[in-house]
Amino acid sequence: MKIGILGYGNLGRGVECAIRQNDDMQLSCVFTRRDPSSVKILTDNVNVYSVSEIEKHTAEVDVLVICGGSATDLPVQTPEYARLFNVIDSFDTHARIPEHFANVDEAAKKSGHTALISAGWDPGMFSLNRLYANCILPEGNDYTFWGKGVSQGHSDAIRRVKGVKDGKQYTIPVPEALEAVRAGENPTLTTRQKHTRECFVVPEEGADLAAIEEAIKTMPNYFSDYDTTVHFITEEELKRDHAGIPHGGFVFRTGVTGWEKEHKHVIEYSLKLDSNPEFTSSVILAYARAIYRLNKEGVSGCKTVFDIAPAYLSPMSADELRAHLL
Amino acid sequence: MKIGILGYGNLGRGVECAIRQNDDMQLSCVFTRRDPSSVKILTDNVNVYSVSEIEKHTAEVDVLVICGGSATDLPVQTPEYARLFNVIDSFDTHARIPEHFANVDEAAKKSGHTALISAGWDPGMFSLNRLYANCILPEGNDYTFWGKGVSQGHSDAIRRVKGVKDGKQYTIPVPEALEAVRAGENPTLTTRQKHTRECFVVPEEGADLAAIEEAIKTMPNYFSDYDTTVHFITEEELKRDHAGIPHGGFVFRTGVTGWEKEHKHVIEYSLKLDSNPEFTSSVILAYARAIYRLNKEGVSGCKTVFDIAPAYLSPMSADELRAHLL
Repeated sequence: MKIGILGYGNLGRGVECAIRQNDDMQLSCVFTRRDPSSVKILTDNVNVYSVSEIEKHTAEVDVLVICGGSATDLPVQTPEYARLFNVIDSFDTHARIPEHFANVDEAAKKSGHTALISAGWDPGMFSLNRLYANCILPEGNDYTFWGKGVSQGHSDAIRRVKGVKDGKQYTIPVPEALEAVRAGENPTLTTRQKHTRECFVVPEEGADLAAIEEAIKTMPNYFSDYDTTVHFITEEELKRDHAGIPHGGFVFRTGVTGWEKEHKHVIEYSLKLDSNPEFTSSVILAYARAIYRLNKEGVSGCKTVFDIAPAYLSPMSADELRAHLL
Repeated sequence: MKIGILGYGNLGRGVECAIRQNDDMQLSCVFTRRDPSSVKILTDNVNVYSVSEIEKHTAEVDVLVICGGSATDLPVQTPEYARLFNVIDSFDTHARIPEHFANVDEAAKKSGHTALISAGWDPGMFSLNRLYANCILPEGNDYTFWGKGVSQGHSDAIRRVKGVKDGKQYTIPVPEALEAVRAGENPTLTTRQKHTRECFVVPEEGADLAAIEEAIKTMPNYFSDYDTTVHFITEEELKRDHAGIPHGGFVFRTGVTGWEKEHKHVIEYSLKLDSNPEFTSSVILAYARAIYRLNKEGVSGCKTVFDIAPAYLSPMSADELRAHLL
């Protein structure tokens, strides 16, 4: 399978790295909106092209991994390139998934390509676990916790505060809430009871630290509904201690069975990730394999993780899977 | 969907209970090898038939859930009844899955029915999690722990020991092993380091307790490779404190990503189940829905959980799933 990457940021680089771990895949080319000569990739002897010339290179790519942002890039790019390629993205604006799906589905069906949107871990693996667990335990409660990990959106919000030079935000599940859910207590949890937020802020010289802290803690939507801690650190400390992009989280379903609903069950799925973009990339590539195969079988249109039989993700044959993993 | 149950033990009763939690299903009838008049089921106004008359009742059943044992019942029953019905079982002898699959596949293809074998949690949900995690993290290690829970096979083994009137065995993961795996340490673990075994034994009057304990602890295959604890209790205590059939366990995949494989990831899936047979039944019914739908689409032959796209398990439409669970 020849993989093309559109957009060479953290996610694109993650896809590039993950391709090396999948023997049936190779990186074919990278497309960028920047000047291609300015983009240095890790892999030797692979071309970087301007996205403006993408139509010339359709024969070089079996699946195009679109690594843009969900706010403005993907809603345009994924339907556009589904006209030319089998495409996959990690669109993660949950509320706009139905609309994005419809647009990509229309484009992919017209062109006979196969597309998959919202691959990754949430949406993605977390969604799958919500679905499986809801089907198994129809009567129950769902809980999702995120973290400990870096929230890009909240880190960006910090950096927009007056007097802030740089900063990073960690989302952290409240341990007592996790334990109550895990114990099957079915707690009703407010936003504040589920997660705390921890900020590491590099102030500009002479900035009013109290004002920064107040501005962050009272910021609506982002911080005001949470217990937030603000630490002021130096630029060196930020680089040394907070350069990574870890993340993770927990999906629970707690439910009951039995004639009198007398038996309780807890299903828990959790991820602890050193690198959010690299893990997301790894999920994307498994689904890239699936849509490539589906396209060969004559299937077109847009899919999600819900539509893909798990065996399609694996390089192993059905016989091997039954013998070794079932 | 009209569900038929073949075999009315713990699993059959679990299926009966779970049907009440799925609005699109109803219990149509129960087939038994016993005298039907001796089998009292929980549901009102549902017929219990002798399995010898099962051919007369094919029109009453959309999916037959076969609730026999894996050792001798299912290898015969599932292929046999795949000639007459869409069938599903929870065959759990991992080593014999390929052979069982081939037999059921042949019968189901000939008759145009859809079958699914090995539904449940292991094989079943644990297998799915092994597969997904292996596809996402091709370079890594797998760990499966079982328990804390009752092992039927080990409880049976205890009861065969001379001087034992009754008994129950719990399989328990070693907490230190779990923690080492969860921390991403990739330990190499012996059988003894992964699980301990705890036995609650009701001795016959005047039995030699020391001899019983010795016989259990040194029993090859079942106990000799484990640290085993034996508690002698009264029949009343066994009934009062050990009547349930809880189980559960943990599936881990730990792996690496990055250009230099510098980032570690831990994927963990765990179950904590008050009732092993009722949870297994709940998984079976979700997959019964899937094979019923597949059969309506014209698909025949044998499937496993690896072959079923998750959306087929849910009573919700694809639109609803994308809007609410993705």
